[in-house]
Amino acid sequence: MKKLLLVYVFLIGVFLIYVYNYHLQASRIRTVNQEEQTLQGKIEETYVMVTFLSGIDYWKNCLKGFEDAAQALNVSVEYRGATQYDVNEQVTVLEQVIAKKPAGIAISAIDPNKLTGTINKAVEQGIPVVLFDSDALSSKAFSFLGTNNYNAGVTAAHKMAELLGKKGKVAVITLPNQLNHQQRTKGFIETIDKEYPEMEVVTVKDGKGDALASKQAALELLKQYPELSGIFVTEANGGVGVGEAVASFATAKKVKIISFDTDKRTLDMVKQGMIEATLAQGTWNMGYWSLQFLFHLHHRLTPSLPSGYPLLPAYMDTGITVVTKENVDSFYAK
Amino acid sequence: MKKLLLVYVFLIGVFLIYVYNYHLQASRIRTVNQEEQTLQGKIEETYVMVTFLSGIDYWKNCLKGFEDAAQALNVSVEYRGATQYDVNEQVTVLEQVIAKKPAGIAISAIDPNKLTGTINKAVEQGIPVVLFDSDALSSKAFSFLGTNNYNAGVTAAHKMAELLGKKGKVAVITLPNQLNHQQRTKGFIETIDKEYPEMEVVTVKDGKGDALASKQAALELLKQYPELSGIFVTEANGGVGVGEAVASFATAKKVKIISFDTDKRTLDMVKQGMIEATLAQGTWNMGYWSLQFLFHLHHRLTPSLPSGYPLLPAYMDTGITVVTKENVDSFYAK
Repeated sequence: MKKLLLVYVFLIGVFLIYVYNYHLQASRIRTVNQEEQTLQGKIEETYVMVTFLSGIDYWKNCLKGFEDAAQALNVSVEYRGATQYDVNEQVTVLEQVIAKKPAGIAISAIDPNKLTGTINKAVEQGIPVVLFDSDALSSKAFSFLGTNNYNAGVTAAHKMAELLGKKGKVAVITLPNQLNHQQRTKGFIETIDKEYPEMEVVTVKDGKGDALASKQAALELLKQYPELSGIFVTEANGGVGVGEAVASFATAKKVKIISFDTDKRTLDMVKQGMIEATLAQGTWNMGYWSLQFLFHLHHRLTPSLPSGYPLLPAYMDTGITVVTKENVDSFYAK
Repeated sequence: MKKLLLVYVFLIGVFLIYVYNYHLQASRIRTVNQEEQTLQGKIEETYVMVTFLSGIDYWKNCLKGFEDAAQALNVSVEYRGATQYDVNEQVTVLEQVIAKKPAGIAISAIDPNKLTGTINKAVEQGIPVVLFDSDALSSKAFSFLGTNNYNAGVTAAHKMAELLGKKGKVAVITLPNQLNHQQRTKGFIETIDKEYPEMEVVTVKDGKGDALASKQAALELLKQYPELSGIFVTEANGGVGVGEAVASFATAKKVKIISFDTDKRTLDMVKQGMIEATLAQGTWNMGYWSLQFLFHLHHRLTPSLPSGYPLLPAYMDTGITVVTKENVDSFYAK
């Protein structure tokens, strides 16, 4: 009897150990498989976002996208940037980032040429680099993710036509020497010319990227063209100035304003009806897909071209959303 | 003694069951966490790729990208398509796919307008749809992934300039009524005009997308412009015809040809030196990122706009690679 019981103990014990081991092993196999097949990095794998004027609201949503992707991919991120609008400072920051050999760098270039050398240095050291928001065309970075500025101008033209019932004279206030602003202006003018025969772009003025200069330019416009119905301002500081000019200038009917970006002052003016609409860039997309691209480069998940260059999309248009009184509340930075 | 042994059996049993349960639970927790945080679907989650002329080589690499993404994301894919170049057949196939309520559909539209109704029906039923390779601009699909045809023309112009030492007269043979071919032609001509003062585009001819008609057009060109140095053909059938024309026509020096796409005949001609270069589209990217976008839509991994519309990039330029004798071997369909 005693022996029989010992045998029972032994058998039950062996059986339970067997079951336990089986499950342990099964879960190990699953874990190994997942590491091989899935889009999962390591938490010590660090990707860095580099900006300029690093404290402004504009980058918050880019960083949110970058962080969301990092969480999904189980990796870490760092945020760095030049605090000033200073290309030398951004070069220094980028040098510091490179020295730490991160898993990848997403950078918005303050200057299309002056960062090229440092960006190429990173790529040559095997660090994946993508550009977002603001490109450095001649660099060796693998991809660019940002707004298609011509299309943004097209979107502004359609919205302006909608606001004015497809009729009337309009003007543009822009930064005539900066490529992205030239493209916004071109998309706007070509769309009005082609698709809205009863509308006309009467002039393009320089707002110098400054609220005061843009206010002045708008006041001149309003005097010169008393029949003006709308103004498209291609950047946010100017939009605020133009909003003030129109508010201070007595006209029979309010001149409609379309501005750009979603800083707090612009959104406030949309809320108050001083600006009819503003164009929000796809900043979350810029950050999210930048990290996805960097992760794919770091883990060599894309096939390579015969040159050894990874097959990655050359460009991603991160999209534009029209912000009006109806949806303005959800665009305030959180 | 007997009782004591029973107690032992009981205690050992309870202990082992406890250990076993603990591990089982730990692995369950891990699985749940992974489902929440990581980019992992379920194997019964099926995404469908829909094409036309579904048997041609061109789609193989698109499907490879689609399958690679499915493996990384742990989901399933299906390949469907109209066997003919027939819009009604593609509508029927799409209807059948929609009826099975897949997790997402990536479709290359044979016609920019006639599929719009059916695509919109899928979107309205809550099935994510993206377009790749060939767009349906006015549809409710969430994104388009494909070649930037204007930029492809720009690339062709730079390659032509390189082949000709930035000097000489060139011509284009194209499909003048099809938008993507118009864009390729425009990018080519504008780049030659702007950036290569010693080059000239003397004429643009209709090759009708056909080898014989393109051969005829090329022969006419060669007679009319005896000093011609290069021809850019915007599609593959034409490229083959032009290659034959140039080979059959005795000239002092060989007229250089740049063609489009990478079907077998074109690659063979590149290998033989009858065609100097051809442009490969980023087909793997189209498939891979289409599935990524659909997965993100299905799992609602992107933030939504106030309209409820998911924040997804509007457009992805899947890139162009120049294929020459040096790298042609790696472009044959596997």
